[in-house]
Amino acid sequence: MPSGNQSAPYFVGVELGGTKIRAGVCCALLRLRRKVKLSTKADRGAPAVIKRIARAVRDAVDEADLNWEDIRGVGVGAPGSVDAEAGEVLLAPSLGWSMVPLRASLEKELGLPVFVENDGLTATLGVHLVELKSKPATMLGLFVGSSISGGLVVNGRVYRGGNGMAGALGHMVVAVGGPKCACGNRGCLEALASRSAIMQAIRAAAKAGQPTLLTTWLGDDLKGMRCSDLRKALRGGDTLVESRVEEAGRHIGIAVGSLINLVNPEVVALGGGVIEALAEKMVPIIRDTARDYVMPGAFGGIKIQTSALGDAAGILGGAWLARQWTSQPS
Amino acid sequence: MPSGNQSAPYFVGVELGGTKIRAGVCCALLRLRRKVKLSTKADRGAPAVIKRIARAVRDAVDEADLNWEDIRGVGVGAPGSVDAEAGEVLLAPSLGWSMVPLRASLEKELGLPVFVENDGLTATLGVHLVELKSKPATMLGLFVGSSISGGLVVNGRVYRGGNGMAGALGHMVVAVGGPKCACGNRGCLEALASRSAIMQAIRAAAKAGQPTLLTTWLGDDLKGMRCSDLRKALRGGDTLVESRVEEAGRHIGIAVGSLINLVNPEVVALGGGVIEALAEKMVPIIRDTARDYVMPGAFGGIKIQTSALGDAAGILGGAWLARQWTSQPS
Repeated sequence: MPSGNQSAPYFVGVELGGTKIRAGVCCALLRLRRKVKLSTKADRGAPAVIKRIARAVRDAVDEADLNWEDIRGVGVGAPGSVDAEAGEVLLAPSLGWSMVPLRASLEKELGLPVFVENDGLTATLGVHLVELKSKPATMLGLFVGSSISGGLVVNGRVYRGGNGMAGALGHMVVAVGGPKCACGNRGCLEALASRSAIMQAIRAAAKAGQPTLLTTWLGDDLKGMRCSDLRKALRGGDTLVESRVEEAGRHIGIAVGSLINLVNPEVVALGGGVIEALAEKMVPIIRDTARDYVMPGAFGGIKIQTSALGDAAGILGGAWLARQWTSQPS
Repeated sequence: MPSGNQSAPYFVGVELGGTKIRAGVCCALLRLRRKVKLSTKADRGAPAVIKRIARAVRDAVDEADLNWEDIRGVGVGAPGSVDAEAGEVLLAPSLGWSMVPLRASLEKELGLPVFVENDGLTATLGVHLVELKSKPATMLGLFVGSSISGGLVVNGRVYRGGNGMAGALGHMVVAVGGPKCACGNRGCLEALASRSAIMQAIRAAAKAGQPTLLTTWLGDDLKGMRCSDLRKALRGGDTLVESRVEEAGRHIGIAVGSLINLVNPEVVALGGGVIEALAEKMVPIIRDTARDYVMPGAFGGIKIQTSALGDAAGILGGAWLARQWTSQPS
């Protein structure tokens, strides 16, 4: 591992998503100086994506008017199954990745120490440390984007589980035998309520002839549909989009209810591109549905809230990771 | 609260189930001296059941050749939603209970300090402390009987969550819109794989004319069906019973897979009347299905095993609870 500059005061956090790469520079107090965004271009393959991550890191450092020597390390939140110790992405369907040695490749590109964790875990860390000031002893983060990820905080610390893989909330089965998930199983929350699941359902319904404002804006094949289009359609009273977004909200609410029954966190923080764009519609549905599904007594005092950090959560968590690991006594 | 005899060396643990009350006497080292079993007779109402619990406690003390003065306290694992601090059962569908002040009533009957917790939590405690010698830092207990309950151990300690209600594994929604659960919702694991769910499915199929050995043994209405009848039918090659037990096993396996994705415990301990009677058939199905649903890398090193404690798990956990609380510095 490159040793980096041990006295460098800054850290770069990266959130690697199915559609976007986000990178930002933070000081040791986790104040975000600058962030940048690149599209992922997952279809170009892992080596190209890794080069893009490196570019995002360099761009962020440059945007922050810092030099390379100011950076002590880089922390990346990656989607899917991540072996943090090996720095490997074992399987990330939203990227089409399997067994990608992300840490080693990125260290080679950057010449800096790199740390890789699951993106749900890094975003949960960001919310817990920065937004909630580490106050809740137990919390759950749930992030809805191209995929659905999450993380748990238990006794004030991020919870990794027996072999480091805890928190794969997107692959809770909510509807046994339900729609096929990118992970290979059926009925996972991700297959019911992720960005791709919502958009696929809208496309299918539009194709079957259900009217929607989206076809007038985007054409019959709804190419290039984005979450912001869905928000616009909701505001325009589009009943197809409304019903699909509501259904996704109900599925997320049912999962949150099950999770409260199980883990009973003080705070459930919601985030990710879908929640950010559609919070106004979705979050009340999530909250009401969860309440319906929680056992008597178990809902008391629990806050279900939208994270105010937006896409900075994952960046902050990644930066914390880099700070944490480069500050370990060797 | 009655203070009890502070130097008394024994503790009584009770498992209150929908069909049976089990009580046993343990020493401070959690060695079980004797245990007894009574039927619950939930249909007689809460006051009658509480008198039966008191009788089970007295019988257990008598069976162990001990005197009342030898007992320092009583710990009860109760099904459903339990407010441990208030000692109240908030809702227990398998008993038909709602807002029953179990601790206060039982202390009045017994004149001893009583502590009440969720039955899944006490049984998990029993397995963790006695069978697993407190070794796994993270573990999950899942108990399948008239209802389905569970418990989590995190960082070596039982995990109660933000408001003490964690571990309601039976009310994870596995099949959205699925069969109605006693809790009022639909598609909970309990509604798919508990003793009552399995038997209800068998009764419905038999009524619809599917052949089963059970009708020759128990008559057409299958009155008084027990788990041991199901085991006998499996051995006799009864395809109806086989298919229903397999389906319940698959549902439990899917839930265990989701739980491993989420919590990533080192050990998943299975217990309860259904598992005890049908382990040979069910546990391999649970294990294989869970493996199918676990994310890549997350299954490594995880043990899914049947608890060897049988119905003693809850008793031991209850006794530990009593020991713990009566030994608190005041």
